[in-house]
Amino acid sequence: MRMVDLIEKKRNGKTLTEQEIRWIIKGYTENTIEDYQMSALLMAIYFQGMNQVEASTLTTAMVESGDQVDLSEINGVKVDKHSTGGVGDTTTIILAPLVASVGVPVAKMSGRGLGHTGGTLDKLEAIPGFHIEFTNEEFINNVNEHKIAVIGQSGNLTPADKKIYALRDVTATVNSIPLIASSIMSKKIAAGSDAIVLDVKVGSGAFMKDNEQATELAKTMVDIGSQVNRQTMAVVSDMSQPLGRAIGNALEIKEAINVLRGEGPEDLTELVLTLGSQMVVLGQQANDLDEARQMLEQAIQSGKALDKLKEFIVIQGGDESIVDNPDKLPQAKFEIQLPAKESGFVSEMTADQIGVASMKLGAGRETKDQEINMAVGIILNKKIGDAVKEGESLLTIYSDTKDIEETKEILYNSIIISDKSTKPTLIHSIITG
Amino acid sequence: MRMVDLIEKKRNGKTLTEQEIRWIIKGYTENTIEDYQMSALLMAIYFQGMNQVEASTLTTAMVESGDQVDLSEINGVKVDKHSTGGVGDTTTIILAPLVASVGVPVAKMSGRGLGHTGGTLDKLEAIPGFHIEFTNEEFINNVNEHKIAVIGQSGNLTPADKKIYALRDVTATVNSIPLIASSIMSKKIAAGSDAIVLDVKVGSGAFMKDNEQATELAKTMVDIGSQVNRQTMAVVSDMSQPLGRAIGNALEIKEAINVLRGEGPEDLTELVLTLGSQMVVLGQQANDLDEARQMLEQAIQSGKALDKLKEFIVIQGGDESIVDNPDKLPQAKFEIQLPAKESGFVSEMTADQIGVASMKLGAGRETKDQEINMAVGIILNKKIGDAVKEGESLLTIYSDTKDIEETKEILYNSIIISDKSTKPTLIHSIITG
Repeated sequence: MRMVDLIEKKRNGKTLTEQEIRWIIKGYTENTIEDYQMSALLMAIYFQGMNQVEASTLTTAMVESGDQVDLSEINGVKVDKHSTGGVGDTTTIILAPLVASVGVPVAKMSGRGLGHTGGTLDKLEAIPGFHIEFTNEEFINNVNEHKIAVIGQSGNLTPADKKIYALRDVTATVNSIPLIASSIMSKKIAAGSDAIVLDVKVGSGAFMKDNEQATELAKTMVDIGSQVNRQTMAVVSDMSQPLGRAIGNALEIKEAINVLRGEGPEDLTELVLTLGSQMVVLGQQANDLDEARQMLEQAIQSGKALDKLKEFIVIQGGDESIVDNPDKLPQAKFEIQLPAKESGFVSEMTADQIGVASMKLGAGRETKDQEINMAVGIILNKKIGDAVKEGESLLTIYSDTKDIEETKEILYNSIIISDKSTKPTLIHSIITG
Repeated sequence: MRMVDLIEKKRNGKTLTEQEIRWIIKGYTENTIEDYQMSALLMAIYFQGMNQVEASTLTTAMVESGDQVDLSEINGVKVDKHSTGGVGDTTTIILAPLVASVGVPVAKMSGRGLGHTGGTLDKLEAIPGFHIEFTNEEFINNVNEHKIAVIGQSGNLTPADKKIYALRDVTATVNSIPLIASSIMSKKIAAGSDAIVLDVKVGSGAFMKDNEQATELAKTMVDIGSQVNRQTMAVVSDMSQPLGRAIGNALEIKEAINVLRGEGPEDLTELVLTLGSQMVVLGQQANDLDEARQMLEQAIQSGKALDKLKEFIVIQGGDESIVDNPDKLPQAKFEIQLPAKESGFVSEMTADQIGVASMKLGAGRETKDQEINMAVGIILNKKIGDAVKEGESLLTIYSDTKDIEETKEILYNSIIISDKSTKPTLIHSIITG
């Protein structure tokens, strides 16, 4: 087999065979295929696409390029959730105890990431004492006993995906649906779960800017899931504005507590119930989405979900009293209001720009070794569609410095006030495979 | 400027600016742009194409990446001819003395190549004593005095093109019209000529397999020529079967002599007159193609063209008596006939396969250091459309060994005899800009 022939084949719109895809991924992982050939192939895939079988084969080949997590000692159907990423997305921290409280085992491996705020792990570490240093045995025992535990990611998962992703990043080949889908799915599958729930974000704060593309991505991933025997469901949800009201690590933990208490923002609660219902069905704790949703609503009303959060924090060595006394979480020095410059209705709150502002305050990291400030962030007092009067606070900035003129300017530029009130649709579509 | 942004721009079908193209070519020549980014860009160009201004800018940037030959001390309009390559293409050796005999200065720089037979230079070296070791001054004096001379290529011409071509070869991005056109034109322009005549071959023995593509390539190159002030004309000509009857170095020299004597094969003579007329017009020795053709026909009839060939050989230190006694050229040990296995009409003589057979005999080289056998080759006794009787010789193999079963098999497989007589069109189109 010669790589140049396979590049030409894909360039001409032909389908690569399983053998060919496996040969490419093996060769690239082992450095016998050069970057310049791989990038030409990736660009050919950008233009010619891949069919479902090709995308599934690519996913499997990337999974098999490295270690795979074995969760077989955990009882029940292990369901993992993945979000394509957005601003103020607190869903994981809410969903984990929520679905665990109705019997779905949550065995979470977490890594750190770059972004507007920290990753889920960083956010959890805003809780005093919370840690993830467990042996595999402790981790598995915790999940079996409490239905919930989190551990740091170990092992060399999907090295092929890591290498290909780095190349895509510098060759303008990131934005290809089969490549995005196989990258996400390979990571989830290697992480060992039996079933997967996907939250595909669409809008200014998301990678996918339009609904059609996001839906195609969701369908592609759900199809890959069924091809490789991991039942998968997906939601396409709005990210034209930040989800919920909190952006920032400790601020999002507080917001998560509010949702589990039944007092959270409407959009965040709705998305959590939608995704959670899918997890409960895939985890075989309910027969359909309606039944699952009722179970989750009841878990919130009865306090069972909040109790599971406390139990979870205790398991991980954290101080569970923060759930009833959230003021024990890190507090920023200053609360600064951003007053509206005119009256009207909020018609835009560009999520990615608000994310950038939050990062400037110190809530996220741009490079791997940057420290995260757990206390700082933003609380939205208005969301798209809300009426606002001149001088009224659009949002509250939680900062450790008063020198935030640049941040304020970014925030003002991200918000448009007009004379029309229109709310964006939160859930664009639900794909159950 | 960031390469990834320029790749994305082209990927999205946008036009690259002059500044951007120059930055890319400079960076790639100086190794500050990586191969993997360049190959992604080339694949994006494969799919999105380039407009005329982009192709011209790319051509100029590649010309300026290295040395440029200065022919300004040569009097008159210097016209260069380029063929996209085929089998049995003896046109250069005929055209050079032919157009020189009517006053067009021919200042030929020649290199060696890989292929079915040797390059033009290799073929000329079949003439005893012929050499190309001259100083630049001697070369220029020869052209000014005799209107014709050949010298070996020196200097570092179009290093960007060399580097890009090598990359295209292994990344399935060779077959892109703007990339082919700018590669050819950059080499011709760097070689210093004022005007360019192009012979774009189409058919089984050529790089371009269909007429539409070949015509587009020809038009693109003619347009690049006018954008960069080098007047350019082109002919799209047939390469479904070998041109003329001879394939092989000494055999093609003999055939060239025959054409200049007015006794050459019809197709080769016709193509030479067509291309030659364009050279004479561009060289400002005639007002139009008809007048130019008459001048060339007269030069052949009067013996002036043949005399110019002798003069040329003398200048280059060769034995001009081979013109009147071609048997002084290297002779193969054996002449072996290939008899037809059935009666009918020749309906196919696949040029590239006949080229491969000739290379197997030793007439060409597959790797740079292989020696060429000047004597061996093939003479076609039949061409497409000719009637043939079972047992009659289709072609004569000139070989230094009788062990040529493999070659015979290739040749038999390349020839189809059917019950229909159809001749291919020789000249598909003439593009005068």
